[in-house]
Amino acid sequence: MTNTRITHIGSHVDKEVAISGWLYNSRSSGSIAFLEIRDGSGFLQAIVNKADVSEDVWNDTQKLTQESSLRLTGIVSKHPKKENVFELQVKDLQVYQFASEYPIAHKEHGPEFLMDHRHLWLRSKRQWAILRIRDVVESAVNEYLHQEGFVRTDSPVFTPNACEGTTTLFAVPYFDLGEAYLSQSGQLYIEAAISSVGRCYDFGPVFRAEKSKTKRHLTEFWMMDAEAAFVEHEENMQIQEGLIKHIVKRCLEQCQEEFAILERNIEPLQKVVELPFTKLTYDEAIKKLHEEGSDIKYGEDLGNDDEGLLTQHSPVPVFIHKWPKSIKPFYVKRDPENEDLALNVDLIGIEGSGEIIGGAQREDNIQYLEERIKEEGLNEADYTWYLDLRRYGSVPHSGFGLGLERMVRWMSGVEHIRECIPFPRTVNRLKP
Amino acid sequence: MTNTRITHIGSHVDKEVAISGWLYNSRSSGSIAFLEIRDGSGFLQAIVNKADVSEDVWNDTQKLTQESSLRLTGIVSKHPKKENVFELQVKDLQVYQFASEYPIAHKEHGPEFLMDHRHLWLRSKRQWAILRIRDVVESAVNEYLHQEGFVRTDSPVFTPNACEGTTTLFAVPYFDLGEAYLSQSGQLYIEAAISSVGRCYDFGPVFRAEKSKTKRHLTEFWMMDAEAAFVEHEENMQIQEGLIKHIVKRCLEQCQEEFAILERNIEPLQKVVELPFTKLTYDEAIKKLHEEGSDIKYGEDLGNDDEGLLTQHSPVPVFIHKWPKSIKPFYVKRDPENEDLALNVDLIGIEGSGEIIGGAQREDNIQYLEERIKEEGLNEADYTWYLDLRRYGSVPHSGFGLGLERMVRWMSGVEHIRECIPFPRTVNRLKP
Repeated sequence: MTNTRITHIGSHVDKEVAISGWLYNSRSSGSIAFLEIRDGSGFLQAIVNKADVSEDVWNDTQKLTQESSLRLTGIVSKHPKKENVFELQVKDLQVYQFASEYPIAHKEHGPEFLMDHRHLWLRSKRQWAILRIRDVVESAVNEYLHQEGFVRTDSPVFTPNACEGTTTLFAVPYFDLGEAYLSQSGQLYIEAAISSVGRCYDFGPVFRAEKSKTKRHLTEFWMMDAEAAFVEHEENMQIQEGLIKHIVKRCLEQCQEEFAILERNIEPLQKVVELPFTKLTYDEAIKKLHEEGSDIKYGEDLGNDDEGLLTQHSPVPVFIHKWPKSIKPFYVKRDPENEDLALNVDLIGIEGSGEIIGGAQREDNIQYLEERIKEEGLNEADYTWYLDLRRYGSVPHSGFGLGLERMVRWMSGVEHIRECIPFPRTVNRLKP
Repeated sequence: MTNTRITHIGSHVDKEVAISGWLYNSRSSGSIAFLEIRDGSGFLQAIVNKADVSEDVWNDTQKLTQESSLRLTGIVSKHPKKENVFELQVKDLQVYQFASEYPIAHKEHGPEFLMDHRHLWLRSKRQWAILRIRDVVESAVNEYLHQEGFVRTDSPVFTPNACEGTTTLFAVPYFDLGEAYLSQSGQLYIEAAISSVGRCYDFGPVFRAEKSKTKRHLTEFWMMDAEAAFVEHEENMQIQEGLIKHIVKRCLEQCQEEFAILERNIEPLQKVVELPFTKLTYDEAIKKLHEEGSDIKYGEDLGNDDEGLLTQHSPVPVFIHKWPKSIKPFYVKRDPENEDLALNVDLIGIEGSGEIIGGAQREDNIQYLEERIKEEGLNEADYTWYLDLRRYGSVPHSGFGLGLERMVRWMSGVEHIRECIPFPRTVNRLKP
């Protein structure tokens, strides 16, 4: 008999099926054993009645340790009380392996111990739920962008120069060509690709040699960069709002079991799908922050506390747009209505999720770009190819970047970003 | 008026639309100009009749250079002779930018020149077609694997130890932890993740410090690794065949324009979708090669020529499975029917596409694994975490890896793999 996956078991009620999986939990009550089985697609209670199975099977049942791997055959039944919950009345059981004593039993462990055992920790219900939410978020990003006519265009990891600053770059000896730097953003590359495919995005790992040990920093994380020709500032925000709403909608549809495991209140997410997002200019945001008692000075970047103050009473994410040009990178377009401002935008999520998206309309005027490259003391020769994009058919265009782990963290409602990537890498963590 | 994208123009016949794009080609005939416009979603002939436009517009039309960016408004009409081809009868034209003299005009250039101008070369019809085929291949992989219950589980780029040999590793200084190596395969990591989600895959960049300058080698390329619990050797091949058929099917459905541009004969691809794939054991393959005149010795790996001989008369890809254990890595499971053989498989594509997939059932017995790690002189401590997967609920499981660029190369029918990734990286190429 071929295996049935637990997620499909509801269509086999009163029929015999085989399930392969691992023992997650068990309890015995006299001549009945209750085995909680997981197979990766879901969780299932299997009931072994001593009277219904051979003596060998019953004996094996008594010896099963947590994480033992096994194959069960039996009849699917509805849970006597719970809707849409099913059980297996076991007829036979074969053990692939009696697991050795599992180091991560169902008790509290410190974060370092869990991180050292990340390869096993992933099996917990909580980590299972987060992994699956991450998959749904990634798929929703791909789906929305394709609907909107974006073509996936992978940008390189090995780059000859840096996109944002040079203090947090990882350098790799590269044959006879000196050093390659690991990409911090594919933006400049997909800006080139829009002149081929019009709208495009990349979605892959980027790298920051961050020594920060905060709950929001990883040295390796996934970033989606999207870029579109003939899209200006306002439409750029529309696309971003559409993307976030689509991701949240898909999570609400597909992650009900995961949200229940994480005890995540989904009411705030429902509002995010329904209501329009708030827009504040940087000027308005600073004014509001001063009213709320912040001592931020005009021209400064927003800190975590500021982001919290701006979103604390908002049911929806908040766009903060048109920042002072002076604190934004050279490639951001100046606001034609006010030359001191930039046509950029940050999207701050609710529930303490912080900056989810950063984007901007890009400077399409080659003279302005050349000036800014000089002002910032960048090496002009590194940007010859980028300036070519403005020499040969420059067009108005905009784009933005979405941090995958920050989005997963928000959706999952977990505190620490290290749980939002399968194998986290930080300043002091390179294993397993 | 908001822009219409060229791909949607067929639903606007006899209506006025605006199109933004670039001038790809043009010719004039007295008082009529024919502009070939591309906007990333497709190509369109726009017809400017001197009598129908203002003098300024007509003058601009005469000055347009290749790659100038512009916005056209006009009426959509059907091509007088060609089915499903549309034209634009121009009423107005605004120029975003008259492009400087374009370095990649419509003539032959050497490969190094084109590679130096990759950021512009991407705009050619041929590169446009390949970029879009790549996107379709990636989407088809995601779609098929999700249908089959696989969860995307990104594996890390920074790894503390190597998966395959150590001569082609890129090393990166990593804070106080010594060196990190850039991943050559996520396989070992997704083997850990199957014990959480059952079936999973990663899909991202991997790295080989390859000094080879062949047409099939890049230092950075994309790999999809899939892994499934409770899947054994035969089912592993079924999943691979299903995946390849699905990718080819989607390309046939969605890339008709791209195939036409590349002058790619699609008949061989249609057969790949329809017919079952061929399976040869390694023993059978060697026998066949000897019959074909090859001087390969039993126990040797197959070279390009051998792959060509084995597939030259085959309408479908060929699985070569059950190779001598001695030339396969430590993690490949031994064939229970013949201890000298491994339960591995390579899938060789047709039309000279070479090895598309490499996979295997994995060794699930911890003693055998420990023996093989010793035999191969690997550092056992590096694999403690991997061996944990066999200590705590080991299960039969299998997986495989698909090289994205090789698949794109096959689908596109192009010769050199450097055209199959947006920004190729090779031993002597790190720019742009």
